[in-house]
Amino acid sequence: MKIYLAGPDVFLPDAVEIGRRKAAICARHGLTGLYPLDNVVDLAADDASLAIFKGNQAMMDAADAIIANLTPFRGPSADAGTVYELGYMAGRGKLRFAYSNDPAIYADRVARSFRITTSAAGHMIDADGLTVEDFGLPDNLMMIHTLDLHGARLVTPREPPQDIWHDLTSFEACVALAADRATGKPD
Amino acid sequence: MKIYLAGPDVFLPDAVEIGRRKAAICARHGLTGLYPLDNVVDLAADDASLAIFKGNQAMMDAADAIIANLTPFRGPSADAGTVYELGYMAGRGKLRFAYSNDPAIYADRVARSFRITTSAAGHMIDADGLTVEDFGLPDNLMMIHTLDLHGARLVTPREPPQDIWHDLTSFEACVALAADRATGKPD
Repeated sequence: MKIYLAGPDVFLPDAVEIGRRKAAICARHGLTGLYPLDNVVDLAADDASLAIFKGNQAMMDAADAIIANLTPFRGPSADAGTVYELGYMAGRGKLRFAYSNDPAIYADRVARSFRITTSAAGHMIDADGLTVEDFGLPDNLMMIHTLDLHGARLVTPREPPQDIWHDLTSFEACVALAADRATGKPD
Repeated sequence: MKIYLAGPDVFLPDAVEIGRRKAAICARHGLTGLYPLDNVVDLAADDASLAIFKGNQAMMDAADAIIANLTPFRGPSADAGTVYELGYMAGRGKLRFAYSNDPAIYADRVARSFRITTSAAGHMIDADGLTVEDFGLPDNLMMIHTLDLHGARLVTPREPPQDIWHDLTSFEACVALAADRATGKPD
């Protein structure tokens, strides 16, 4: 089973190394990890961003499943590029797994970072008056339920690990779930 | 042509009203707007979030195209639910249109809100050491290029409108682009 390894990991200073670690974990479980930086792109070229897009899309099309790193990124939700890719794989009918190294509930995370009040109707609202989604889920319901229905529940640690960008414990739990699917073991 | 109307508009205090305005604009251009809140969901039910997911997905499956509101939402990128839906429609091979009422470049927006430095390799990095995507695009390249290739370039105003959550000028420009596609007019 080929797994597309999505996440803001590609933005880490040791992005190539973490891709190698993820691919090695996949291999240990009998799976093949496909990592965006495996594509060779000339970053100095004028069309570098388009080349990255095309490379990532081809890699997703070649994969049977996605493992997305949905750890919150520059805000209370996951990295937009990763979320797009989770949606894309959902649209293509592929298996979906994901983890987040922050186990907090979305509404609690928003409440910690933004000025939140309660509307006349009793909803949590932000300073712009927009409702804060509050279903007790760790991120937007579209991502959470696509995982529940077509892969496995979002994997989160009990407590955030020391290094949220390099700890691969929850990632490996996703790989194990995918490997069970690949060999037809029951959930 | 049926258009799925995605966006954090559903979180506005006047979410139903803005959906009506968007659908009316679609109708004026000969198109049918499908708005998430058209689905009837019992928000008091235990499985309300799952019912919303299923309703949104069925609506996307029934639509020929998406118009996504990618105005930055609680951070420098678009709303995660909307980004997921753009990815989903991409995976389903549907036409993609989107607008953002903030015309700024992603890297500039990040630099305004986060402590940014330059790495030894000359990249913009954030306080966690993660690279800031800097291709001169208004948001993550996956979203921007999927629009370029399979719909139309992200529509943005020259200056942010007075009311970024209610101004529908750029939305209407997307509707006009979709209507041209529906009638086979050249871009």
